Amino acid sequence: MQAWDDLTTRIRELDALGSANALLEWDQQTYMPPRAADARGDQLALLQRLYHERFTDPAVGAWLDQLEATELDPTQRVAVHNLRRKYRRAVCLPTRLVEDLAKARNDGFGAWVAAKQADDFSGFEAPLQRLLDLAREQVEFYRTPEHAHPYDALLEDYDPGSTVAELRPMFDRLAGELGTFLAAVDGRAHAEGFDARLDIDGQKRLSQRVLRDMGYDMQGGRLDLAAHPFSTGIAHGDVRLTTRYEEDNLLSGLGSTIHEGGHGLYEQGLPSRLAGTWLNSAASYGLHESQSRFWENFVGRSLPFYRYLVPRMQAIWPDLAVTPEQLYGAANRVERTLIRVEADEATYNLHIIVRFSLEVEIFGGKLQARDLPEAWTEAYRRIVGVVPPSPKTGVLQDVHWSSGLLGYFPSYTLGNLYAASLAQCLLRDLPDLWHRVEHGDFAPILGWLRTRIHDRGHTADAPVIVRDVIGDRDPVADLVAHLWSRHGAVYGVARPS
Amino acid sequence: MQAWDDLTTRIRELDALGSANALLEWDQQTYMPPRAADARGDQLALLQRLYHERFTDPAVGAWLDQLEATELDPTQRVAVHNLRRKYRRAVCLPTRLVEDLAKARNDGFGAWVAAKQADDFSGFEAPLQRLLDLAREQVEFYRTPEHAHPYDALLEDYDPGSTVAELRPMFDRLAGELGTFLAAVDGRAHAEGFDARLDIDGQKRLSQRVLRDMGYDMQGGRLDLAAHPFSTGIAHGDVRLTTRYEEDNLLSGLGSTIHEGGHGLYEQGLPSRLAGTWLNSAASYGLHESQSRFWENFVGRSLPFYRYLVPRMQAIWPDLAVTPEQLYGAANRVERTLIRVEADEATYNLHIIVRFSLEVEIFGGKLQARDLPEAWTEAYRRIVGVVPPSPKTGVLQDVHWSSGLLGYFPSYTLGNLYAASLAQCLLRDLPDLWHRVEHGDFAPILGWLRTRIHDRGHTADAPVIVRDVIGDRDPVADLVAHLWSRHGAVYGVARPS
Repeated sequence: MQAWDDLTTRIRELDALGSANALLEWDQQTYMPPRAADARGDQLALLQRLYHERFTDPAVGAWLDQLEATELDPTQRVAVHNLRRKYRRAVCLPTRLVEDLAKARNDGFGAWVAAKQADDFSGFEAPLQRLLDLAREQVEFYRTPEHAHPYDALLEDYDPGSTVAELRPMFDRLAGELGTFLAAVDGRAHAEGFDARLDIDGQKRLSQRVLRDMGYDMQGGRLDLAAHPFSTGIAHGDVRLTTRYEEDNLLSGLGSTIHEGGHGLYEQGLPSRLAGTWLNSAASYGLHESQSRFWENFVGRSLPFYRYLVPRMQAIWPDLAVTPEQLYGAANRVERTLIRVEADEATYNLHIIVRFSLEVEIFGGKLQARDLPEAWTEAYRRIVGVVPPSPKTGVLQDVHWSSGLLGYFPSYTLGNLYAASLAQCLLRDLPDLWHRVEHGDFAPILGWLRTRIHDRGHTADAPVIVRDVIGDRDPVADLVAHLWSRHGAVYGVARPS
Repeated sequence: MQAWDDLTTRIRELDALGSANALLEWDQQTYMPPRAADARGDQLALLQRLYHERFTDPAVGAWLDQLEATELDPTQRVAVHNLRRKYRRAVCLPTRLVEDLAKARNDGFGAWVAAKQADDFSGFEAPLQRLLDLAREQVEFYRTPEHAHPYDALLEDYDPGSTVAELRPMFDRLAGELGTFLAAVDGRAHAEGFDARLDIDGQKRLSQRVLRDMGYDMQGGRLDLAAHPFSTGIAHGDVRLTTRYEEDNLLSGLGSTIHEGGHGLYEQGLPSRLAGTWLNSAASYGLHESQSRFWENFVGRSLPFYRYLVPRMQAIWPDLAVTPEQLYGAANRVERTLIRVEADEATYNLHIIVRFSLEVEIFGGKLQARDLPEAWTEAYRRIVGVVPPSPKTGVLQDVHWSSGLLGYFPSYTLGNLYAASLAQCLLRDLPDLWHRVEHGDFAPILGWLRTRIHDRGHTADAPVIVRDVIGDRDPVADLVAHLWSRHGAVYGVARPS
């Protein structure tokens, strides 16, 4: 099949270009000298333009046409289906709209930075309205009969296969359950924090040690510093992590390492044998996030994990006096707070549900930029139970909207939900899980994730991949049960029966 | 002028692609995980192909045609002249020859690695012969009436404007003078080496300190580790250096740092206002090397430099007992040795002259691969005064030929010669030079190089740029005088008058 060979050759080329782009972005956030910033912008813009040109090439459409009219094996069929979906979105926007979006994102980001700095929404209102108008226009081009709700057309960029029809009732139930849980914890005394001063070099060694124990392959990756930790799958054999360290906050940096490690393990486990089809890529942002959250929260904040960790800490800092129980308490504080990125494992999802409900209203209803500050405050009062004193800690707190990222937020809570049910299935298959965690024997966990999630790549959409593992389990019930069990115990509260 | 705008836009694009390529290569030698090697090869091959396609695009030729028929300002005229020369070479080779060369280089490199390992030339002979045949064919395509000697057509890749007619008598005179000098030093006692064990972290801080004092801009660059130190001008504001450290060999690592620092200062000083014309690039490999050798040898091995250095060393290692005179002696040992990359400042040039004489004979005469081991031994006996015991330390010692790099070697000695005369002119313009060096006041040196060399970029070929500074000075005489003055003093020998 010439069309198949041509198509996969082109995809490999796009992968090589994408890898170059990813390395330049990694470097931008790790080692790039400050004065290189302007030139780096030009380099990235060119690589992205070349990538877009080569992907939207009419030849790609013609190969897909031919393959759709050909007898294909099941793997090829999925590959062609996914590629058609991506190709359609890549070619359907008029050049004018693409340029307007790029400009609006640029303007929006600048206006957001200034507005947040000034703690005043007014300067951001017009640029944000522009972004919302263009996104609505974009939705008109993206939307197919499969997108029952206009917002579904945006979700497809991040979590193909997820829909408002499925997310809304799930998120509503979750919000209700979390409300009950937080009401039980409200006003209870927190465990003490852990703020021992620990040298950065030792923290770095501990992070490396934990990653190696988790099964992260240092021969095919690395761990560097970055102001905002991230992970990046540059290529097969080249999956890089970043983290950060603070002398008096070991748990925060280590949490970042484990979170990014979870992402990295997923990328390292993708099926490289499917190179050239894009089936060797992550199935969705939500599934990606399920991997990071699984390791960061389910494993990394468990009491057995701290039983594993304390001896490794004391090997580095022999004089350190700390117990697993202290770390466990310090790492599992629950509190209704205003800032998403600092939120605990439970409250975090309420932050996401606020943004989801507003975004759905923007695309399904009539919500405009000027309405957002009030709608935000009202949603926080109702859903999170706190009220931001000013825009900086309210509607202006996140960068996403200013960069035109609409439809992205649900992935975070989808990740938590997926992780919760995956964890329960893992516990069923591996009843001595916590014993193994306590002894740093993470290999069976990784092996389990590898066969069920990582190795499937994007051979199906994430909801299907997850459903194949969890069957008819209810992720909301699993997440809520986990939170009651872990944090309820820490706070001495029990689930009302 | 539409053609000028189109051409400079294309050059900027090529620069952005070239920058991406350079970053990938930098990463390959610094931070890339081992398992990324295969994917990196694909990425580099693609970027290089895209670069070649966009440069050899017939549109580029058409813009040059139009501009050559247009009234241009002098800067544009030089830019068009240089670009035509490069374009002509990029398009003149038949695809078949380009592919054959790529394959022969790949095969040649593999065969060379194996042959050197086995210390046996025979396995390398056929692949080398193939490379020579293809290079001769390449010369036929490259050669223009300006290339009086076939080898001139190869020199143009590295040192445009240099010719056999000019280099041969210069190198012959230099070989004679160096022979006299080495005969005087032969058998004299060497100064003691310097092998104090000094921790790597301290060596790193010393290297950073020296680079900053030299005027290297750390906001537009960085210093990293690499097995084989190199520098790379990735983009304006992004000029990176690498070096290496050995605990018991401070001088070697520091020498690498200063050498690469010299390259880096040149790159940082190139005229960025000329972006889009390639006049903002180095004029030649030889001129580039003159900058690194000037700093490494003329400045960095001088007694005043060690007077500057010792207090900075003692600030890092307070208990270290060493005098400037000790370092000066240790850094200026002269000896007829077999290995080019380990050779001293004097003997080094004889190594280059051997390779130059063989390469000229390959392209101007009938020398074949099978003749090279014997010709090599004979040339070493005659020119360097030593005889390699086996191919590993003889004809197989350098990688260049195995990668098809023919015409490259002269740049090294050209650099030494340029540096010698530039140094004498600098001393004339800045009579208190050594006093300043002793006090770490390198700014006037850098300022002098900036206006005379760096800022000219490639607005003229290197021989012209150098001649504009040194007038009718004789670089051979300047280099030889410098060697007698520095090493003669160390060895207690005087130039016969």
